[in-house]
Amino acid sequence: MTAIPLGQGPEFDRIRAIAERLGSRAGVLGEDCALIEMGETYLALSTDVSVEGVHFRREWLSLEEIGWRATAAALSDLAAAGAAAVGVLAALTVPAAEPAETFAALMDGAGSAVSSVGGVVLGGDLSRGPLLSLAMTVLGRTAAPAHRKGARPGDGLWVTGALGGARAALRAWENGRRPDEGARVRFAHPEPRLDQGAWLVAQGARAMLDLSDGLAADAGHLAAASGVSVRIDLGLVPADPAAREEARRSGESAGTFAARGGEDYELLAAMPPEFTGATPFPLTRIGRIEPGSGARFLLDGAELPLSGYDHFA
Amino acid sequence: MTAIPLGQGPEFDRIRAIAERLGSRAGVLGEDCALIEMGETYLALSTDVSVEGVHFRREWLSLEEIGWRATAAALSDLAAAGAAAVGVLAALTVPAAEPAETFAALMDGAGSAVSSVGGVVLGGDLSRGPLLSLAMTVLGRTAAPAHRKGARPGDGLWVTGALGGARAALRAWENGRRPDEGARVRFAHPEPRLDQGAWLVAQGARAMLDLSDGLAADAGHLAAASGVSVRIDLGLVPADPAAREEARRSGESAGTFAARGGEDYELLAAMPPEFTGATPFPLTRIGRIEPGSGARFLLDGAELPLSGYDHFA
Repeated sequence: MTAIPLGQGPEFDRIRAIAERLGSRAGVLGEDCALIEMGETYLALSTDVSVEGVHFRREWLSLEEIGWRATAAALSDLAAAGAAAVGVLAALTVPAAEPAETFAALMDGAGSAVSSVGGVVLGGDLSRGPLLSLAMTVLGRTAAPAHRKGARPGDGLWVTGALGGARAALRAWENGRRPDEGARVRFAHPEPRLDQGAWLVAQGARAMLDLSDGLAADAGHLAAASGVSVRIDLGLVPADPAAREEARRSGESAGTFAARGGEDYELLAAMPPEFTGATPFPLTRIGRIEPGSGARFLLDGAELPLSGYDHFA
Repeated sequence: MTAIPLGQGPEFDRIRAIAERLGSRAGVLGEDCALIEMGETYLALSTDVSVEGVHFRREWLSLEEIGWRATAAALSDLAAAGAAAVGVLAALTVPAAEPAETFAALMDGAGSAVSSVGGVVLGGDLSRGPLLSLAMTVLGRTAAPAHRKGARPGDGLWVTGALGGARAALRAWENGRRPDEGARVRFAHPEPRLDQGAWLVAQGARAMLDLSDGLAADAGHLAAASGVSVRIDLGLVPADPAAREEARRSGESAGTFAARGGEDYELLAAMPPEFTGATPFPLTRIGRIEPGSGARFLLDGAELPLSGYDHFA
């Protein structure tokens, strides 16, 4: 068994099955990044695939945005490890009937995303295929990587930025509405939090991950990897303005709506009790680490069962 | 312009357009591997995507073979750089209706391929998608990487193994025949030539690449990158036994059939004139480097125009 302890869900069942099958043919699976020690530094590597019709629709995004978003999603894993970006490799498939320009526009977005955090496009592979598919692999480096394990009872649980914006855009599209522009940008143009990740590691972060499946799911992964219970007060969860508006429409609390939204690519970190939260960027304390297992969500003092997004559910 | 000088063909037109669009947002594009200097070693990284219906069909291969072949194709780029394997990251898409076992079987093949050359599965990403697609990214390391550039007039041109086996299998399938088992194995289970690549670098290889598009196309890429002409005697090209048989069927010379076949994943190297070819593995001298540009193919003393496989042609 070479996977770290993983949370629930069919995607993680698949990872567990792969780790069991591979045995010693695999390294440690289930972290945001693979970490490889090289002298005094660690390489951090992560791959992330974005498929048309599964992760995005072409009516929603420009080609440049599709390239940016796929790359930012991969870079977000480097942020979760506290790593600095070196670059990205892009494996792209595009339908044969498309002009060559499609590749250049996708890569334009990818290049902007990786250069926004100081990296470059390192290489790639191009293929035809029935639809757009972008597998982006990022390389980073760090002297002191963060992991999903390491949270201890008593630690505070903190989140960067505001959540639920990407979900608010999705909800609008799914209901035939045009999303609020702020929400659309949150979906189309997520900013990977590499500076914040490195800063949180420097401040002693005990455990960290990025919110790709949504707080409701990802909190469970942090709990499982660390062997602790995570307790989150939904009233404290910072919700994007568009998420608050969508929550109002559906009669949910804003924090509940935001916690169930995936693909915000903010960071969730367990910080030692003495951490004050004085930061150069938005960071909110939303709960704490307790003994036990699993993630518990409280709204006005009552426990609420929550689950996040799983592509295989 | 950040691409190395590239050969002809629509795939390379796309790479040129991407390099122009990206400008300083890209490293050096067009090599088999991205190379990143880290202290006294170079990291070598390459990504390679295999799409159902484009690179393979499920009737032809088992899931384990699909995983092996996709991984071996990526590892072959490490061989071309003379690098040793560290590991692979796998971004897989599989239709939602498939059992979880499909992922495990694909990764079983990937794990066997990477462990056959001393690496491990480092990580990955799983998604649903309309068909099987495998984007495999490999990481290697080397103290002295080989490049596509560096060949000089007077160098000998050498190739590992025998060519055309994968094309013989394809030809049989396309004509509704069952391929010879040797040919099927050449297509389904290519052996990445990492030991040979490192050995050739140690013997002073001036330039090297792996034969993925076929000798007819790849020789032109080596010529373009090195700013030389490559002259190949098709009578000297070592042909796989099944390639000889298929060539007989179609009335081609065996060397011509073999030179037009892609996906053999053998190595093509320009070696200094004093290199004798005494090797611990099959290696054949098939031509030489001359002043000028482009690849020239000679059969019984007459020049023959040849082109290789291009997914976008």
